[in-house]
Amino acid sequence: MMVKVGIINVTGYVGMELARLLHQHPQVELASITGRSAVGQRLGEVLPHLADIDLAIEPELGEVTLVFSALPHKTSVEAVAAALERGIKVIDTSADFRLKDAKEYQRWYDFTHPAPQLLSEAVYGLAELNRHQIASSRLVANPGCYPTGAILALAPALKEGLIEPDIIVDAKSGVSGAGRTLSLGTHFAEANENVSAYALEGHRHLPEITQELSGLNPALPLAVTFVPHLVPMSRGILTTCYAKLKEGWDGKGELEKGRGDFEKGMRELYREFYRGEPFIRVVDAPPQTKQTLGTNLCLIYPTIDPRTQRLIIVSCIDNLVKGGAGQALQSMNLMLGLPEVTALEGSAVYP
Amino acid sequence: MMVKVGIINVTGYVGMELARLLHQHPQVELASITGRSAVGQRLGEVLPHLADIDLAIEPELGEVTLVFSALPHKTSVEAVAAALERGIKVIDTSADFRLKDAKEYQRWYDFTHPAPQLLSEAVYGLAELNRHQIASSRLVANPGCYPTGAILALAPALKEGLIEPDIIVDAKSGVSGAGRTLSLGTHFAEANENVSAYALEGHRHLPEITQELSGLNPALPLAVTFVPHLVPMSRGILTTCYAKLKEGWDGKGELEKGRGDFEKGMRELYREFYRGEPFIRVVDAPPQTKQTLGTNLCLIYPTIDPRTQRLIIVSCIDNLVKGGAGQALQSMNLMLGLPEVTALEGSAVYP
Amino acid sequence: MMVKVGIINVTGYVGMELARLLHQHPQVELASITGRSAVGQRLGEVLPHLADIDLAIEPELGEVTLVFSALPHKTSVEAVAAALERGIKVIDTSADFRLKDAKEYQRWYDFTHPAPQLLSEAVYGLAELNRHQIASSRLVANPGCYPTGAILALAPALKEGLIEPDIIVDAKSGVSGAGRTLSLGTHFAEANENVSAYALEGHRHLPEITQELSGLNPALPLAVTFVPHLVPMSRGILTTCYAKLKEGWDGKGELEKGRGDFEKGMRELYREFYRGEPFIRVVDAPPQTKQTLGTNLCLIYPTIDPRTQRLIIVSCIDNLVKGGAGQALQSMNLMLGLPEVTALEGSAVYP
Amino acid sequence: MMVKVGIINVTGYVGMELARLLHQHPQVELASITGRSAVGQRLGEVLPHLADIDLAIEPELGEVTLVFSALPHKTSVEAVAAALERGIKVIDTSADFRLKDAKEYQRWYDFTHPAPQLLSEAVYGLAELNRHQIASSRLVANPGCYPTGAILALAPALKEGLIEPDIIVDAKSGVSGAGRTLSLGTHFAEANENVSAYALEGHRHLPEITQELSGLNPALPLAVTFVPHLVPMSRGILTTCYAKLKEGWDGKGELEKGRGDFEKGMRELYREFYRGEPFIRVVDAPPQTKQTLGTNLCLIYPTIDPRTQRLIIVSCIDNLVKGGAGQALQSMNLMLGLPEVTALEGSAVYP
Repeated sequence: MMVKVGIINVTGYVGMELARLLHQHPQVELASITGRSAVGQRLGEVLPHLADIDLAIEPELGEVTLVFSALPHKTSVEAVAAALERGIKVIDTSADFRLKDAKEYQRWYDFTHPAPQLLSEAVYGLAELNRHQIASSRLVANPGCYPTGAILALAPALKEGLIEPDIIVDAKSGVSGAGRTLSLGTHFAEANENVSAYALEGHRHLPEITQELSGLNPALPLAVTFVPHLVPMSRGILTTCYAKLKEGWDGKGELEKGRGDFEKGMRELYREFYRGEPFIRVVDAPPQTKQTLGTNLCLIYPTIDPRTQRLIIVSCIDNLVKGGAGQALQSMNLMLGLPEVTALEGSAVYP
Repeated sequence: MMVKVGIINVTGYVGMELARLLHQHPQVELASITGRSAVGQRLGEVLPHLADIDLAIEPELGEVTLVFSALPHKTSVEAVAAALERGIKVIDTSADFRLKDAKEYQRWYDFTHPAPQLLSEAVYGLAELNRHQIASSRLVANPGCYPTGAILALAPALKEGLIEPDIIVDAKSGVSGAGRTLSLGTHFAEANENVSAYALEGHRHLPEITQELSGLNPALPLAVTFVPHLVPMSRGILTTCYAKLKEGWDGKGELEKGRGDFEKGMRELYREFYRGEPFIRVVDAPPQTKQTLGTNLCLIYPTIDPRTQRLIIVSCIDNLVKGGAGQALQSMNLMLGLPEVTALEGSAVYP
Repeated sequence: MMVKVGIINVTGYVGMELARLLHQHPQVELASITGRSAVGQRLGEVLPHLADIDLAIEPELGEVTLVFSALPHKTSVEAVAAALERGIKVIDTSADFRLKDAKEYQRWYDFTHPAPQLLSEAVYGLAELNRHQIASSRLVANPGCYPTGAILALAPALKEGLIEPDIIVDAKSGVSGAGRTLSLGTHFAEANENVSAYALEGHRHLPEITQELSGLNPALPLAVTFVPHLVPMSRGILTTCYAKLKEGWDGKGELEKGRGDFEKGMRELYREFYRGEPFIRVVDAPPQTKQTLGTNLCLIYPTIDPRTQRLIIVSCIDNLVKGGAGQALQSMNLMLGLPEVTALEGSAVYP
Repeated sequence: MMVKVGIINVTGYVGMELARLLHQHPQVELASITGRSAVGQRLGEVLPHLADIDLAIEPELGEVTLVFSALPHKTSVEAVAAALERGIKVIDTSADFRLKDAKEYQRWYDFTHPAPQLLSEAVYGLAELNRHQIASSRLVANPGCYPTGAILALAPALKEGLIEPDIIVDAKSGVSGAGRTLSLGTHFAEANENVSAYALEGHRHLPEITQELSGLNPALPLAVTFVPHLVPMSRGILTTCYAKLKEGWDGKGELEKGRGDFEKGMRELYREFYRGEPFIRVVDAPPQTKQTLGTNLCLIYPTIDPRTQRLIIVSCIDNLVKGGAGQALQSMNLMLGLPEVTALEGSAVYP
């Protein structure tokens, strides 16, 4: 029998991508969708590319076993609490349950969290680090797109204690990461043929990155600088991370043998860390975002600048799949006891 | 048991897209791939986005039941003949078997066709028009990308005799349509932020369009003008077709009632023509290429310019799927007696 | 002494492009700018790329000899009338004075024109056709971007009576043509990697095209079909025009000699028509929009489809320069008795 | 009287941009152009956007006072030496005279420099740092595009001794930076909708960056990590630089007052450093590459991450103007005793 699931706010980019992925899931039925606009319309009228999903946008969530909330932060928390009340498992794709410390919501998101008791219960939905907790949870906070790329890139090096705590994360994102809400910065003629850095005063994904990375190596007092950039493409995030190798750590002597040997050693270490992970690929050449388009993959390339003893790690994801809907569906599979990769296989749409 | 298939020249855009689609086919095994370069390398080394297809590029085609030739025209014909000799069914994605008249190869492709006897045997692989012939064929000529968009847009109106034979086909294609061979016109900085018309002296897809459209209504002496344009995107073709409505034909009186009624009537007629077709959608609003990205769909929107009694038909496809690898796989399903839609379902990767 | 000019509504794309061009004009001083928003701010705060223009956005137009109104249609008419009252010459870049027949405003723009008496006085600002009237006018209606590309492409053939009156204009525009007002269709992730046809029910530039083309050959009962398309680039319009050659007209016998000779004859005829025009280039190879980027040029390529006796004319412009601000400045030069090309020279920014 | 200048290898991106800029120079005449291909053709045949430059591509350089060599590295050195022999002043846009230490050419460019005696004579053509030496030089090495963005961003902080020597330069470049030579990585369908990091083993612009930055503060043992990225646009480089503030340096106490005050202090310091520079703008908000398109400007935005005491500096240039042809022309003006900004004024082509 098919498990019934729902999507709250299907009309944003994460919501519509969830619908696309769920529609091809053989054991799950997308049974109920809601929207903040367009209530009463067929999904295909509002989103023509989803015309073969035969559902109307409802004002209220129907009977489902699990629901994805694709509402914006601050709005999502109430919908999540209401669904939990009804005994429905929830995966929240907003930021509302990602931070453990309620005070951080005041600081970074400018609101008093109305359900702080749920924060400790919520599991951060990065399967590669929290697989078992996700599987047994009733509330998963789906990671932000930037944190996904940054944490997966840095986790092995941090966990193994290879790097100094001074870390720079320079991320380049496609414009869909800014969502479907209109703004001058995402107006085509303004964003096209243009690159910009933004949120230099501090991006909301920074506390999330710091929280999760700190958890991996609590002894290390992290100092993370994170600068996001907008690049003129629809999908994809490339994250370039920089950190000094710990003095003394020379990759088991390989650094002396040359960059090539050291790199191989570093890649081996990364591969060991991610052994068996279905969606992580530690690659032998610099990856490109296009190689992940439409997939749940995270490509990771650790390398070294031998002139400065600096570790450089490049990662690539599709911000709407591994950085959004795909990762949420991965958590859903775990929560429902289904094979983790179901509906998430398939290669990148390239070129 | 899985049916074994192969791809000759996997490293071009159609070849790699075939590999992507075949890899997700539950009843078919991609068993052998060849390339004009990179022989001996693993597929994932050459095309990292296909790293989970565990095959090496071979110098010669192995044992398969059916093969796709993704070689360029003129080169393909020999590989096709050789495969047929071995008793292998063939789908040729080049132009080498699309034209029925061998003399046309001299005129349009500048070579003497070395196997003219196969031209009459080859079936033009447009399932919507030739489903049964494809199913029983051992040689299918996969349609060109432009002809696919143009023929599907015009077929109902021509077959039903609604339009005059003077037809204009103005097509706008993404740059992948020009293939993976390097050229100044497809160099990023030249093609980006640029639109151009090309092949105004006569594009090689014109005889193919004319041949197939003439077959639908042999009495009508067609005069087709076809102008292709290059637009700065990777995938997609939007085709705008123009033809005068036959005098006297007024959509069963609906034209007098107004554009809206006439349009509805015309859409009904198109829907009737394509009833049951899994990959054709006659749509109620102007379609966009992005709504087909990664899918085997053809969206068709017939409308009328009431000021000039002109029928305008807009169609959209993904040039590498319905206009290439997807359509070829659709023919393969028919030739192997498998459900036609297998491995071709799934919604567009949008945005 | 410098002539003082102003811009009403400098913050839209045409307004800001006017400011850029005027700033490099040696005989004209941009003395006053107004905006619908941002009043009181320095121009460089609102539009950083114009930071070296040392002006504040004012609530009311200051003392100037000539003003450009870059307001949207319906809003512009009042500002224009007020400026004329003050004895200021006006170039209106909106549609409010382009149509001669006031009733057309009701039909196409859905409002009753409040100053119909000015319609007959306004000169359609296409210098190539109306140079002398522009020079002596106090009110110029700057042509729409699509009409500019279409009229310049078709004028010689129509004027010389070479073509049948059934004309198709298939235009491809960059997204800036839709203006700076936010909309889902011009949201980056929606417009990127996408082509679409729009306004199939009738675009507002159609009556303008028909009015001006009819004026060139009043005896010919024109039947123009115009379909605009949106392509993923910021600037540029490529227009492809199709019309049957008049029976009997064979390019002085050259058509029989072959396409090449006929084409040369046709190009000669076009060159004769535009002899001395500083911004028209009749070119020998299909033009590309990128070759006009940032310039006031219109590139025109007339050719023939010998299979169907159809004339095909391709034109390229930068929609914000020759299709907007540049053409307006060209008219200003004429109205002020300055050399027509001042501040409009310079080659395309390519690539 | 006009000064005659020439361009060796006009057909690459820097060469053609030089021609565009020189054509609008009132005191200089572009008198001779050569190319590696297309000798004998008119410039407008080869590069249609330069059709109003009435010159043929010659096999040998004619009589000129100054020449730009736009040949690739390794090839340029001989042409430069030959021109100097003839008493012609030279601005070399290749890398062949940028490095002071001949051994570095072996290491980074894999050839033995054939004219090491000229290396000490050559002046690094960054007018903001070497204005007087350029003016009196007969050989200027035009800086690389990446070094221009990086050095201008870092110079004030380094010179004033505000930062630690550990520096990260993360640069994002448009694809024209890779030149006009065809390659798979710059093929449209591969580079479009894609971001990648490259040259992680060490980019050739690194020794140039290090050499010039070291010259600003010789006491500081620099450790620069430089990672270039390719983003899907034609023009523009955004450079993000990261360095720790020196302990003790708190912006004259302002850091304690808050990020805002500190930032203002830092911007003041940068403005002081660049006071009077015509092409440097220290800006109050994060700059965008599009704000420099077609101009010789460098926009610089220094800011602070107060959580980590890290200085972040973002700079934007047009890689073909300030990062190439424009900067070369700026040096030419200095060498010829002309006003430095001639032919380099004008605002960005935006959007």
